[in-house]
Amino acid sequence: MKAVQLVEYDQPPRLTEVPDPVIQDPHDVIVRIGGAGVCRTDLHIIEGQWQAKSGVALPYTIGHENAGWVEAVGSSVTHVGVGDPVILHPLVTCGLCRACRFGDDVHCENSRFPGIDSDGGYAEYLRTSARSVVRLDDGLEPAAVAALADAGLTAYHAVAKAARMLRPGDTAVSIGAGGLGHIGIQVFKALSSARLVVVDRSPEALALAAGMGADETLLADGTQREQLLELTGGQGAHAVLDFVGEGGAVEDGMAMLRRAGNYFVIGYGGAINVPTIDVISTEINFVGNLVGSYNDLVELMTLAAEGKVTLHTQRYALDDFARALDDLDHGLVRGRAILIPTQSQES
Amino acid sequence: MKAVQLVEYDQPPRLTEVPDPVIQDPHDVIVRIGGAGVCRTDLHIIEGQWQAKSGVALPYTIGHENAGWVEAVGSSVTHVGVGDPVILHPLVTCGLCRACRFGDDVHCENSRFPGIDSDGGYAEYLRTSARSVVRLDDGLEPAAVAALADAGLTAYHAVAKAARMLRPGDTAVSIGAGGLGHIGIQVFKALSSARLVVVDRSPEALALAAGMGADETLLADGTQREQLLELTGGQGAHAVLDFVGEGGAVEDGMAMLRRAGNYFVIGYGGAINVPTIDVISTEINFVGNLVGSYNDLVELMTLAAEGKVTLHTQRYALDDFARALDDLDHGLVRGRAILIPTQSQES
Amino acid sequence: MKAVQLVEYDQPPRLTEVPDPVIQDPHDVIVRIGGAGVCRTDLHIIEGQWQAKSGVALPYTIGHENAGWVEAVGSSVTHVGVGDPVILHPLVTCGLCRACRFGDDVHCENSRFPGIDSDGGYAEYLRTSARSVVRLDDGLEPAAVAALADAGLTAYHAVAKAARMLRPGDTAVSIGAGGLGHIGIQVFKALSSARLVVVDRSPEALALAAGMGADETLLADGTQREQLLELTGGQGAHAVLDFVGEGGAVEDGMAMLRRAGNYFVIGYGGAINVPTIDVISTEINFVGNLVGSYNDLVELMTLAAEGKVTLHTQRYALDDFARALDDLDHGLVRGRAILIPTQSQES
Amino acid sequence: MKAVQLVEYDQPPRLTEVPDPVIQDPHDVIVRIGGAGVCRTDLHIIEGQWQAKSGVALPYTIGHENAGWVEAVGSSVTHVGVGDPVILHPLVTCGLCRACRFGDDVHCENSRFPGIDSDGGYAEYLRTSARSVVRLDDGLEPAAVAALADAGLTAYHAVAKAARMLRPGDTAVSIGAGGLGHIGIQVFKALSSARLVVVDRSPEALALAAGMGADETLLADGTQREQLLELTGGQGAHAVLDFVGEGGAVEDGMAMLRRAGNYFVIGYGGAINVPTIDVISTEINFVGNLVGSYNDLVELMTLAAEGKVTLHTQRYALDDFARALDDLDHGLVRGRAILIPTQSQES
Repeated sequence: MKAVQLVEYDQPPRLTEVPDPVIQDPHDVIVRIGGAGVCRTDLHIIEGQWQAKSGVALPYTIGHENAGWVEAVGSSVTHVGVGDPVILHPLVTCGLCRACRFGDDVHCENSRFPGIDSDGGYAEYLRTSARSVVRLDDGLEPAAVAALADAGLTAYHAVAKAARMLRPGDTAVSIGAGGLGHIGIQVFKALSSARLVVVDRSPEALALAAGMGADETLLADGTQREQLLELTGGQGAHAVLDFVGEGGAVEDGMAMLRRAGNYFVIGYGGAINVPTIDVISTEINFVGNLVGSYNDLVELMTLAAEGKVTLHTQRYALDDFARALDDLDHGLVRGRAILIPTQSQES
Repeated sequence: MKAVQLVEYDQPPRLTEVPDPVIQDPHDVIVRIGGAGVCRTDLHIIEGQWQAKSGVALPYTIGHENAGWVEAVGSSVTHVGVGDPVILHPLVTCGLCRACRFGDDVHCENSRFPGIDSDGGYAEYLRTSARSVVRLDDGLEPAAVAALADAGLTAYHAVAKAARMLRPGDTAVSIGAGGLGHIGIQVFKALSSARLVVVDRSPEALALAAGMGADETLLADGTQREQLLELTGGQGAHAVLDFVGEGGAVEDGMAMLRRAGNYFVIGYGGAINVPTIDVISTEINFVGNLVGSYNDLVELMTLAAEGKVTLHTQRYALDDFARALDDLDHGLVRGRAILIPTQSQES
Repeated sequence: MKAVQLVEYDQPPRLTEVPDPVIQDPHDVIVRIGGAGVCRTDLHIIEGQWQAKSGVALPYTIGHENAGWVEAVGSSVTHVGVGDPVILHPLVTCGLCRACRFGDDVHCENSRFPGIDSDGGYAEYLRTSARSVVRLDDGLEPAAVAALADAGLTAYHAVAKAARMLRPGDTAVSIGAGGLGHIGIQVFKALSSARLVVVDRSPEALALAAGMGADETLLADGTQREQLLELTGGQGAHAVLDFVGEGGAVEDGMAMLRRAGNYFVIGYGGAINVPTIDVISTEINFVGNLVGSYNDLVELMTLAAEGKVTLHTQRYALDDFARALDDLDHGLVRGRAILIPTQSQES
Repeated sequence: MKAVQLVEYDQPPRLTEVPDPVIQDPHDVIVRIGGAGVCRTDLHIIEGQWQAKSGVALPYTIGHENAGWVEAVGSSVTHVGVGDPVILHPLVTCGLCRACRFGDDVHCENSRFPGIDSDGGYAEYLRTSARSVVRLDDGLEPAAVAALADAGLTAYHAVAKAARMLRPGDTAVSIGAGGLGHIGIQVFKALSSARLVVVDRSPEALALAAGMGADETLLADGTQREQLLELTGGQGAHAVLDFVGEGGAVEDGMAMLRRAGNYFVIGYGGAINVPTIDVISTEINFVGNLVGSYNDLVELMTLAAEGKVTLHTQRYALDDFARALDDLDHGLVRGRAILIPTQSQES
């Protein structure tokens, strides 16, 4: 089959012919890729930023946001069948460790991460596990939801956690109305009846946010902290969802948080620098957020099937992967770039 | 009555004669002081560190860890009667705001803090509110528990929060086995069956901790991180209770925390400095902890009445307040210093 | 002032002149009634069904669903001012007992219940407490929301509890689409993204339910259990909200509940009769629901102000109370009957 | 190997020679039985009471409380190795359904139950799955803990649920101080600092309960309800743990429950019969309890390894199964009867 492989760090990946993946374990599932999200992390992988962390041996196939159709299943797999449309949880987990058994499969002690530390979805087929395939509603096209498998799932996970703590009349601030933020806004409106205030530097992003249901939007022009305090009677927000995590966002977010509030760290790049006295005197919490669990992904796909979460996609043939990566690197992608193998374009 | 008042910042407080407090509101309660804890915060108040924050007008009476007997009650007070032994929640709260109504009275929007921003308990009598007096079990002497009213309540609050998340077989690390830490260890053993590892720089403090039930003790001699990881199969602790909050404790604590773990910030002085990527990639949380609620104090007094939490006290006559402050400042107090008015010494 | 008083059980109440209520305690609030809900419970009170339970001395003023404007406040009341529109939590609570301090004020150990065990709101003025008045949004008319103070608050309380347990893709069944049920449906759609299936014997009620956002409606014609099982892949619903509680509803509801599901008992009249083996082998729970807390009422009023919960009202002058009670008794009220004192009709 | 098989309902099982079980799936584990609990359910199975429910084909091997040593593992099993001491979770679960993924593996949609619906542990070897084996601490002997695998796990599950809701000063009532109750008492004292009141008809059982740490014991002589109310200031208990579930226990338990209390249904045989008005006016909950999850079993084994939960066992050779069943049927077993294959007696 065709696959886009990273052969050498800091060199463009190469489209090449590799053997089709085959069933190796009774719980294996082979998926015919219907769409693979092109993500900023892919650029970082190519640059070598993940080399030490993943320890993957080159060459290997990248692509960690994948959806498609079941092509073959191992002998123990009964919950999906050949031809079923599926999206793939980004991790392949063991199902046996304490974390997996508590539903925190993201903290599985024996997981692998296709596209990061083993062969991913920039290809015609991908080998994964029964534990990682989520059956899609028949109305959902794999290519339309593939990009929700990782970034979208992270946004869902954090927002669902926040929604469980919020009540009508409470205020949440979303910092950042970009890709992650847009999914977060839609999820928030689906899960919570609290008020959502969206903060961003771009008026266009805020206009889009308002169209998605943001109750208030604030331009990050230097007055956003004062405006938020005014909107909340001087008390600040019950929750801050920080989809940015760098460049002043953290300081902004902390200034907007009320006593006993929860600060959800989702985006990254910067740092939290806070005296412990400020943490205890206001009794605030910082809540870390990684990608969501398998069950979270099932729930997100429910919202997608109900039309409550949608994603704008810009599609490229798998052969055009270089252009997709280039467009992403140059800010030319509106929504999310998706690679589609030729055979699946005809599906 | 006699009262110890701060007349000028950076000057020793003065024992003076002031009018007895009187009932001003139907919910008022006048308490005859049986014991007032002498706390490091009192030293800071005298030095003027709280001047801007409290905005209190001098002269006023300090002392914010108070217990005694009910001397008089307002017309609406029925849940305690004259002569009842009581401990005072450090805050006088409104009972009407959303926080009070949720049991988070510590975040009351209209509270005052006797001893900090209004007259406190270095005196023969104190005026407080029906909402702040906790009836003591007849077996408990006010002077023996007074020092649990603030510092002890903070430790209880944090440990109770942690205990609700921990399960048998989990590991918690307590950083610091000093005053707060000792109460924390006792509370932990009362509330949780998880394993408790205590870390401190002092072998004596660790020996005391072991006597209180610490499952493991680690000397903070530079090898503590490695030792903790070894004790936890390389994974770290499910919870870190940081009673220190400065001087390398935070870095130590974070290095000891496992994925998806909770870091309880209790002590203060230093700072949290952590890249957001470290927060999200491990999905850890930082949990702020202020003093506990009124209901927390009731629970702590239950543990005290059951003999599960005890405190070593070193008692001084109220007139000897200067020596007590001095002893505290010079590290000469074993356990907690308590001021006792002459009349109450005879109780 | 004018008041409708019950003078003798089983006799029609009488409109009479009584002294205006006056401030008796610094926390008292006098409210000028803007609307008082006429409730089936009022009929039961008149019939004497509550005589033993309430122990109230006749004559007294009935009416337990009240809203209006603040007319006067005691000296300790600062969170509302004269002229403010307010709705009254049905209970006057102490704010001092453990339940009040945990936010479960409904289980206050020292509460009174105006309209049930002391003078209520079928009158021009009512005396209540600072703890019981919820400030209304300026856009909300007291008469429009008064009937949410008791029955509506019960529905809110139960649905909010259920919503906290449900996730996207889960199914909840609402048994009964009458008065309580209609509020419940609106609250459910505001708080949860789970699927709501409404069951009722009346096609008209179901049509109304569908208009309010019910995802599925099932006519209770004997096939409802099978239909529900079919809708849920044979597994049943994650939650049953039983707004009926009698006449076969409980048996129906239990047959519709899935393993590990929660059965919310809201309506009453019948009984739960279930072998303990059926409770343990499926591990289901029965969850009792009383009226909501003060904070619940604040949240419900937020939803009302946002237009997410509305109520159809049929208004009567206070002087026409007899006709209102009669209409209710004969099923002639559409939505909820509200009594409005003449002076307030001009507001 | 030797196995005790049920050949015909209502006939004594027979010791017979059957083929050794073999690895059939990469996740299979073959366990050499070190001890199999003899349970009242086994008597019911023999009598045919489970015939319709289990649908098992005769002959088959009974025994559903099993522990031993790993004899062989499938190719995918890495978390236990040959020779490891293990206890078996009673269910073999799929690890793929939503319930398994949430940690509620007891509600697995595709489980089997060795000893009930497939071959169990009255034998020398048993085939189970990687998902069902809990590695025992080296200090624990399989025969000493085998009987905790089912009944003990049920008690743990219910008590742990209750413990998470209880706080210092709260009161829980345990109805029944028999086999289940004894484990429940030990677990309660390990997990909770609330007060435990144990009610039983037998003074001997109560004496044993007191020795295990019960804070109060009440003889069920007709005065137990009054005594419990007296112990709780007339308010009743925050939680009732009903290990009996029949013969007046439910009525007793409900009379002892306070407003907003939780009634844990654990034992069975009788029925809950309660008017819905009593459920809503007091806002009580009934909480069903099935056997615990795999993670619960890990936690219970932690308590066992720490010496916090112990069990008195009466041991029989596997060949003496008939005498063990007979002794159980005639009330001659003190603690729990355990069958031990000859080869394992020598371990």
